[in-house]
Parts: sequence; C-alpha cells; structure tokens
Amino acid sequence: MGKNIVYKILEKHLVEGELVAGSPATIKIDRTLTQDSTGTMAYLQLEAMNIDKVKTKKSVAYVDHNMLQQGFENADDHKYIETVAKKYGIYFSKPGNGICHQVNLERFSVPGDTLLGSDSHTPTAGGVGMLAIGAGGLDVALAMAGEPYSINIPRVTKVELIGKLNPMVASKDIILEVLKRETVKGGVGRVYEYGGIGVESLSVPQRATITNMGAELGATTSIFPSDNKTKEFFKAQDRLDDWSELLADDDAVYDEIIKIDLDKLEPMVAAPHSPDNIKTCKEIGPIKIDQVAIGSCTNSSYEDLMKVSRILKGRKVAQNVSLVIAPGSRQVMEMIARNGALADIIASGARILENSCGPCIGMGQSPGTDGISLRTFNRNFFGRSGTNSASVYLTSPEVAAVSAIYGYLRDPRDIDFKVDFEGIYRENFLIDDSMIIEPSEESENVEVVRGPNIKPFPLNTILAKNIQGKVIIKTGDNITTDHIMPSNAKLLPFRSNIPHLSTFCFSTIDDKFADRCMANSGGFIVGGDNYGQGSSREHAALAPLYLGIKTVIAKSFARIHRANLINSGIIPLVFENEKDYDLINKMDELVITDVKSGIKADRILVNNINRGTSFFVKTGFNDNEINMLLAGGKLNSIKIKNSKEVLYV
Amino acid sequence: MGKNIVYKILEKHLVEGELVAGSPATIKIDRTLTQDSTGTMAYLQLEAMNIDKVKTKKSVAYVDHNMLQQGFENADDHKYIETVAKKYGIYFSKPGNGICHQVNLERFSVPGDTLLGSDSHTPTAGGVGMLAIGAGGLDVALAMAGEPYSINIPRVTKVELIGKLNPMVASKDIILEVLKRETVKGGVGRVYEYGGIGVESLSVPQRATITNMGAELGATTSIFPSDNKTKEFFKAQDRLDDWSELLADDDAVYDEIIKIDLDKLEPMVAAPHSPDNIKTCKEIGPIKIDQVAIGSCTNSSYEDLMKVSRILKGRKVAQNVSLVIAPGSRQVMEMIARNGALADIIASGARILENSCGPCIGMGQSPGTDGISLRTFNRNFFGRSGTNSASVYLTSPEVAAVSAIYGYLRDPRDIDFKVDFEGIYRENFLIDDSMIIEPSEESENVEVVRGPNIKPFPLNTILAKNIQGKVIIKTGDNITTDHIMPSNAKLLPFRSNIPHLSTFCFSTIDDKFADRCMANSGGFIVGGDNYGQGSSREHAALAPLYLGIKTVIAKSFARIHRANLINSGIIPLVFENEKDYDLINKMDELVITDVKSGIKADRILVNNINRGTSFFVKTGFNDNEINMLLAGGKLNSIKIKNSKEVLYV
Repeated sequence: MGKNIVYKILEKHLVEGELVAGSPATIKIDRTLTQDSTGTMAYLQLEAMNIDKVKTKKSVAYVDHNMLQQGFENADDHKYIETVAKKYGIYFSKPGNGICHQVNLERFSVPGDTLLGSDSHTPTAGGVGMLAIGAGGLDVALAMAGEPYSINIPRVTKVELIGKLNPMVASKDIILEVLKRETVKGGVGRVYEYGGIGVESLSVPQRATITNMGAELGATTSIFPSDNKTKEFFKAQDRLDDWSELLADDDAVYDEIIKIDLDKLEPMVAAPHSPDNIKTCKEIGPIKIDQVAIGSCTNSSYEDLMKVSRILKGRKVAQNVSLVIAPGSRQVMEMIARNGALADIIASGARILENSCGPCIGMGQSPGTDGISLRTFNRNFFGRSGTNSASVYLTSPEVAAVSAIYGYLRDPRDIDFKVDFEGIYRENFLIDDSMIIEPSEESENVEVVRGPNIKPFPLNTILAKNIQGKVIIKTGDNITTDHIMPSNAKLLPFRSNIPHLSTFCFSTIDDKFADRCMANSGGFIVGGDNYGQGSSREHAALAPLYLGIKTVIAKSFARIHRANLINSGIIPLVFENEKDYDLINKMDELVITDVKSGIKADRILVNNINRGTSFFVKTGFNDNEINMLLAGGKLNSIKIKNSKEVLYV
Repeated sequence: MGKNIVYKILEKHLVEGELVAGSPATIKIDRTLTQDSTGTMAYLQLEAMNIDKVKTKKSVAYVDHNMLQQGFENADDHKYIETVAKKYGIYFSKPGNGICHQVNLERFSVPGDTLLGSDSHTPTAGGVGMLAIGAGGLDVALAMAGEPYSINIPRVTKVELIGKLNPMVASKDIILEVLKRETVKGGVGRVYEYGGIGVESLSVPQRATITNMGAELGATTSIFPSDNKTKEFFKAQDRLDDWSELLADDDAVYDEIIKIDLDKLEPMVAAPHSPDNIKTCKEIGPIKIDQVAIGSCTNSSYEDLMKVSRILKGRKVAQNVSLVIAPGSRQVMEMIARNGALADIIASGARILENSCGPCIGMGQSPGTDGISLRTFNRNFFGRSGTNSASVYLTSPEVAAVSAIYGYLRDPRDIDFKVDFEGIYRENFLIDDSMIIEPSEESENVEVVRGPNIKPFPLNTILAKNIQGKVIIKTGDNITTDHIMPSNAKLLPFRSNIPHLSTFCFSTIDDKFADRCMANSGGFIVGGDNYGQGSSREHAALAPLYLGIKTVIAKSFARIHRANLINSGIIPLVFENEKDYDLINKMDELVITDVKSGIKADRILVNNINRGTSFFVKTGFNDNEINMLLAGGKLNSIKIKNSKEVLYV
C-alpha cells in the first residue's frame, strides 16, 4: 500500500505511537522558528529548561511583528531575543531581514524535515515539502530542548490539482477555492497534501501561498511534494544541498480526495469577515475601494512583487486609493530595488512599508471609518485591521494591483491594458545572509540582555503535601481565556512581563482578583462548566500561576486550557457532584490533604473549613500529566529529566 | 542705506506697521502649508470662517505626521483634510508623497514670497529665499482666509559664511555651530540671514538643512539669498518660472553679524538632550551606538540620501546597529530607486521607512532601554524619541552613515575606506506631481468627509449682556497649558475632537472639572500668578470654551495663553487687588453686569453672590481685542467682517 508524503515524513519522525489517524503520538522536531510576539515568552521558557544549546538541527529566531516600535518595549524584546539566541545556539534574523515565513522558505526550509513554529502560518514551508506545524511558544521551546512534539496523527486529504491556471488567475485563487469548499473548520485534525498534474505548473512561492493560507482551514498543516520545481527554487537560492526529492507513492492512500480543475478557477476574494466567505470578483462587482495592501507572509514573494510591478508600471494608483506594499524579505526588497521594479512601484504612487507583517496583524495602516480595504493577506476577521467598521477583502496580488489602478474591485482579466509577466522567474536569487546573526561559539560569554519589561518566567514548585487556601474567585459557566487573561493593544506589550500582566488577571469581571490573590498568597479558583474556553494562550495559566493559584475546581474544562494548567503545575479538578459547586462561597477556606496520592487516584476529598463540609472531585490524569503535576509543571519535569535528578525520594 | 533680504521681503508684504525692529506689524501671507497633526484643527477653523475659497496665491495641505495609522482616526483625518482641501481651493499632498517641508521646497517654494505653515520647521523654505514662518493652526487658517499675519518686526542677524566646507563636513555642521554659539534661546525675535562668500558653495538642500534647524534657535525664521545656485535648483525642478533673484544690497544693514569660517568646521553632534549641546565627534569619542536614524525634514534630500548610499555601498551595517532610513519625499525615493542607490542602501542592511516624519516625532523606532541613537534630525529633547532613558545625538548624514558601519560614533574624516561623492548633483530631478491632488473646480459639489472622531470646532457666541456663573476651579500659581489640556500619546489622536478632549481638561489636577462645568453650564476659572504658561496649544482655550467657561480671573496671565483665550472669546481679567483672590471659594457664584461696557473700560466690578462681596478686576484690552471679545472670539470677528454683517446694533 503506497504512502502519501505526510505519512512518509511522520514515519521517519515518529517517536511514540502508531501511524493511525486520530491516535496520539509524538514526533521528532528537526527545526524551529519563532517570531518576536510569541518568541520572547518561548525563550524565557527555554531559559528555564536547564539546557546549554538547542538540540534541533537548526532553530531560527525572527523579528517581524512588532517593528513599528512605539516605546522601548519592542526594541528591548528584539535585543533580548538576539542575545538569548546567540547564547543558546539559535540563528537570529535581524529586524528588517523579513517576515519569518518568507525568509524561512528562502533560506532555511528543507524538504522532508519537520518544523515547529510559534506562529500559526508556519505551514508556509509546506510549499517545499516540509512538514511545518504552528504551535504555542512552550511547545516550540520544548522542541528546541529536544523534546518530541505531541500530536494526534492527522487524516490526510489529497487536493488533486488538474489543468493549469489561466492568465491573471493566481495560486491565491486555489486556496480560496479550497476554503470555499472546506470552510474554516474543515481542516481540523487533517493535513492537506497537494498533488496531481496541476502541481507541476506551480512555482514554490505559488505553492507557499497555498500552504500558508491553509492555516485558515484549521488544518494541522498543508504540504506539497518536493519535485523539480522545488529543486529549481533551491538551486536559485544556492541551497541545492538542502534539497531532496519527496513524492507520494503512485498508489498512495488518502483519507479523502478533493479535485480542483485549475482551468475553471477565476479571480476570487474572501469577503468580510471570514477567509471562507469566498466570492468571485464578478459576483462582488465594482465596489469602490479606499485602500489596497499588498504583502504579508501569504503574498510577498519576489514573484508576487514582480507581477505587481508589471501591472503598476507606467500607471497611477487611483486618487481614492491608498496603496501600501510591504515586500516579504530583504532578498525580495533588494532584488526589486536592483532591477527597477521597485522604482516602477513607487512611480505608481504606492507607499512602501518595511518588509514585515505590518497591516496584516493590525500593525498600522488601519482603514478609515467604514473603509473598504483589499488585501493580499490571509485573514479578514472582524476588527483585525484595527478598524471595526472596515470591510476587508482578501485576494491575489493581481486583483489587488489592478483594483488599485481602477479605484474599485476589478477582475484582472477585464483590464483595458496589456500586462506581460514574461521573464520574471529567476534562475538565481540575490543571496545575502548578512542580517542573520549566527549563534556564538562561546555561549558562556554571552550576556542575555533583559529590558525592564522582560520579567523572569514564573515557575511552579514541586507539588506540596497538602494544599490549603481560600476560594479567590467563583465564576459562572463558559469562562474564556479572554476573561482570565485579557489581550488587547494596551496589554500586548506586556506579554513578556507576567508580573505586570497578572495584575489584570480576571480584570474584566473582577478587578480585585489579583489583589486578593496577593493578600492570601494565592488559593483556589472555582469555576463552572466549560472553564477556560477560547484561545490557546498560555498566559491564562501563567498569570494564575504567578498569583499563587494551586488548584482550579470546575464543573468541566476546555481541553487546551486544562493542558495549559497542567503544564503550569496547577491542578484542574472536576466536581464529582455538580451540586457541590453551589455549596462553596467565595473566600471559603479549602483543604486537600496528601495531594500527591490524590492525583494518582480517581478522586480526591476536599474539605471546606468554613462550612465544615467536604466533597469529592475527579482527577483523570494520565501518567504524563501526573508526572508534570508532581514536578510542578511541564518545564520542571523536563528540567528534572535533563538534570537526571531523582524526583521521588 | 542698503537693505537686507528680510526687510526687502517684509517691505513688499507690510500691511500695517513700520519696519522697525520690535514694533508690531501685520504682513500679507502669500502661501500656506499645513501638516496633518495640526491641519485638521486648522481646517475646522477655516470652515468656520464663512469663506468659499482660500485667498492665498497657493495653499497646500500635507500628510506626513500620523502615517503609522494605528486605528481609524488617522485615515479619517487624512480623508477629512483631502476633502476639505478640495472644497476650499487647497492642494492636497497624499500620504506617501513626502514630508511637507521637503515637498514644499521641491515643488512649491518661491523666493521672495511669504509662507505661513502650521509646523515649526516651516523655515526650511528659507533655503530658497522665502520668508517662511511657523505658526499656530488658527493663524494659518486666518492667512488662508486672507487675513494679514501679526508679527513683531524682527531684528536681523547676518550669518556670514566664509571659506568652504572640508570633505565629510556637512551643512548640518554649520547650523550646529550656529546653535553652539547662539543657543536655543538666542534667536527669539530675530531672523538669521545667511550671506558671505561661503553661501555660494552650498546647494539648496544644504541651505535648507540650515534654515530648517534654525527653528531650534527660537528664531522667527532663517533665510538664504536666492542666487544662481537657487536658480539651478529651480531649473532642475522644472520650475524656472517660479525663480527670481533675491540678494541683500551690498551695503545692507544688520542688527548683528556673526562669522563662521567653513574651513574650520569639523563633524559635530548635538548631545543629549538639547540641540545646542554641541560637541565635535572627537570630543564625544567612539561611543557604541544601538540605532542610527537618517531622514526627517532636516536631512532627507536626494543629495543627503545619495551621500548616504555612497558611504554604505558595498559595506554592511554593524551587527549591533539598527539603521533606519526615511527618504524625504517620493521624488527622492523614486530617484534613488531608479539609479540603484536605494538598492545599495538596502544591501547594507538598512531598514527603509516610509517617506514621512517618522521617528523624528516619536512615530515609531523608539530606541530600547538606555539606547544610544544617532539621528540626522533636528530635536533631541528628553523623551521625544518615545524612550525616556534613551540618549539621542543629532548629526549629519555623513556621521550617521559612517557610524552605522562602524557600530560606534566615528568622525567621518577618519574612515579607512574611500568614499566618492562625485556625480551626485543632478541637473534634472524626476518630476511627478501625481500624488498632489488639485482642488475642485466645482467646490460646491465637494462633500467634506468627517469621521466620527472629527467633531465640529467649538465657536463662542456674541458677548452676553451679563455674565453669571460659579467658580468651577480655583488654581494656584504657575498653571501650565499641560495642566489645563494634557497632551500625551493617549490624547493626541483626539486633537480634532474637542468634545472628547475637553473631558480631560484639568484632569491632571482635578478630574471632576469637566463634570462640574457640564453640571453648571460652565462658569468662571480663578487662577493665580502666571496662569497658562508653557506651550502655545490652542486646545487649552478651546476645551474650556467647549465646557462653557466665559471668564478667567487670575493674578496674571502668560502672554500666549491670554491671546488664545481672547481668540476664543473667553475674557481674561486680572485682580486689581491680589488679596481678593483669597476671598473667593470654589463654587462661589460670581456676576458681572453690563460686561460689554466693562471690557471697554479699565476696570470691571465683580459681585460674589455667596459672600455678598464685590471686587475690581483690570481689563487692559486694545481695540482689536475688544472687537474679538464682543464678537465671541477671533473667528467670529472675521466671519462678521467677511459677511459684512453689522455687529453693534
């Protein structure tokens, strides 16, 4: 029975488990990437792991998110990441060198290898046949420390491409078509593997646009074969040594197959406010636009920018439009500066932004009130642009550039001028890695520079014999991680400052929570049903950890938050009888005795000192979880493992 | 008796007064400029003036300050300025077209004409022999409405330049030398007129660097002759029609003369935290630097950028340095993109920012904690970079670029490589005004677009017969405009939203002030000595106006704030007997009867209803001020004048 590409890579990297879709397993991670908005915390976590050097083949730290740099916090984060990278054997891509996914594709991607990145668009590298997965900062830190990564073995969906794209139809339209069919939830637990004759006509940057935006399917990742087109790309990047062929077997088995006839695709957009709200340009019609933004990790390659320059050359941006363009990397930027394309772009009236994530993550260029913005990006969620009343449409660079000239959305096949894309494919890229700083040979001499906003990472202690404390808060049902640890523009600069951040813990519903924690040396949280739903942010566990919370007792937990609590050494316990929830009051004093034995058992007895009552809670921890709780969290358990200390004396 | 250039221009533009240094006069304003951070308010004021079209020869509205655009407010301001400009006969320079002073120099400056700009660096245009003065938004709005501008006739200081600059010594070093000698207070009430044989060797951009940073002297403005070098510049800009010769008479008279021997200058820096804290590079020594920033209205010309590119070409920015470069205009940007210089700059590892004010006004690129930043800008005030602990050194592009390569401050005469500036002077610039939008021919059809953050400008009403109200606040001495109307990053986006802004009026010392105003329909402010000192911001009068304040009674007033109060129709009155201050309590009810007669008399009786007492206050208004107060402020008095209504029936 033939193998698909995904299973070929998984097989080579499997550490524990079996190659059966849906079953838990761990895989070896070859390479990692971080960006600056998640990286600071990831490296603080890495520092806590008692290792000297990263154990991956290669790890790279990028700076591409916080590059507007309003206030000292951003530059301090950059300096911290630079120095911690130098010390721990990590390559550092300086601010200005480009967007992590674009630079990774150009300079660090390797077919057949695994990549874990602390950014959800890490699957971009699937464009060269890399198994590239986005994850939380702690997971990436653990991968750098040599720990295997836990996944559920995904189902593999083959996307069979037949035919060839028509002129002015882009690879962006392929992923928009997939999103139209599969929706933003369609990819959960799956990897999309592209194949079929249509693949051959797609260049690596075109493929990377598809795997990048595959993240919007909710998929584990997306991947293309590594073929002759891939080889050409690596040759042009002067990295032929990193290339190897990786193709699915002819009789490869897939869990599902979907077919897309490229000949039949037409220019499309994702209409507000979801990447799967797909319409053709013609369906939307000639809506007037205020802004066009070209760039982001989805569409900022040399090829993309060259197409844009050819469309803009000798023409002018419409008076009603602000066109902003952010090339994806310094390589792209220098090449279009050398060959005159950038001059053509500037002459059209475009505004050139730094090669960074920029407006895609709401970092500047927010549209005006009720603004219509056409963007080559990957997400158009409500409010993401920084303007709640704005309508953001996602599209290809071709549609974006043509529409910028006309001033309204226009199908680029209907233009009244001729555009020639001949000769834009390069056999050689300009290679210059001088903005990538190599790690130090003498890491013991490297001082990690920590600005005043970068605080030490909170770390739990080995589980105590007994746990006693007050119920600091008693919440209702469906508490989200946004309730527990709010995230907004005011708090984002403090993601590396848990002490400060934790003073806002639960502040949206109880602004005295942190104060009470401090006054009582922490204690218990009592929650209702579905406690901790929403985003995966680790900070919703780290802030309570910092504030001394030892245990959360709830009617039920959301899956990821429960894992984050255990990772932090906070014990999540579930009421055996939900009615016991009603018998607890805020500030009651609870006691659990011999908790080390308790977490290994099915149930634990909790005494309520104020009321003179007691009740049972359920545990349900597997061996791995028990070890983490005993050690005081995942980091401690790794540290202990690495230092070969004996925990249970 | 021969005339200097300044008096030649003043003589031609004098409306009222005499050409005697120190005496009050009014002059005709030929042209105006605004930028976006002051422009929105200026155009709201213009709208209130009941005119159809601006009455200047040409007025231009630029967008160069708020271009990071975080949130809808900036884009809304841009759209408002664009549409109001179109309606009122003003040229609009789109965001991305460049910094106002650079674009003005290139495309709109005219030797011998007067220019009033709502930006303190308006004197940049003095580089071509224009009398260019910075002023508040209302003054610029009034100039657009055809009103003459009030000045005190300045003293004229001749700066006689002899000799010629040595290689790697820049025109920036000339103005740093002037600042060293004259200090930041030295220029008050004066204009610096440059002359002497040394002028001939300086290009227009070099001269403009000097007149630009002349603003730091506190001078009214600075000016160069319009000579053959100027003619060359206008020819290269394809604007020979706008050029005319303007030279001082051979026997011209000056109030003072200072001489600078250019041969003796060496590369200098302004050390933290003042532009007049001048040292040579050698005096400072090789301090390690974290950031180099090149650009701003001081040093972002084609010539500057070409010199930078020649220094950087084939070299790399030091690993410890973040080099950011913002060209001054799209003309500069396109030219260096066309000729390969931009590619050389990018290849060095520089980060390219938009052609805008950028880091000079703290808009991004704040240094890290304790960061050392070397900048080609004009101001290094404490905290202006956005990082209070940073040390900012101001210097020439030559020093900046060379130091970026070495990683520490370095005298550019001491480099160990050869740099050639040959061939960078251009006989023709690339001319493309397509990002300048002409005003509409059919202004009645133009709808002015006002985003939700742009609120109507508050306007007072004709003076009432009697004034009665409570004392809303009673302050101590030395209250600053920062107390009255705080300005910080949180409040800056609301400069065009007086209703919102006014809720923060006095908030630093009394957070219920606005509430009490609202509850009592305004009333009186009672102040101590030197009330309203500090910055010139109009908002410190406009917010009280919005809140219903009719009268301020103080022991004494700061000059500019008193004028701003009168401009707003708020009556500033001075205790005849300072002891009466002690007899007033907060929330006492005061009454002034027949106030129209009162303000024409020397003194007014004020009754304190709560205490059953009364006291006298002094007036001291001139005829012009009386008219403004009667009309309900300067805007109303202009409106009445223009509409030929009869005020006093």
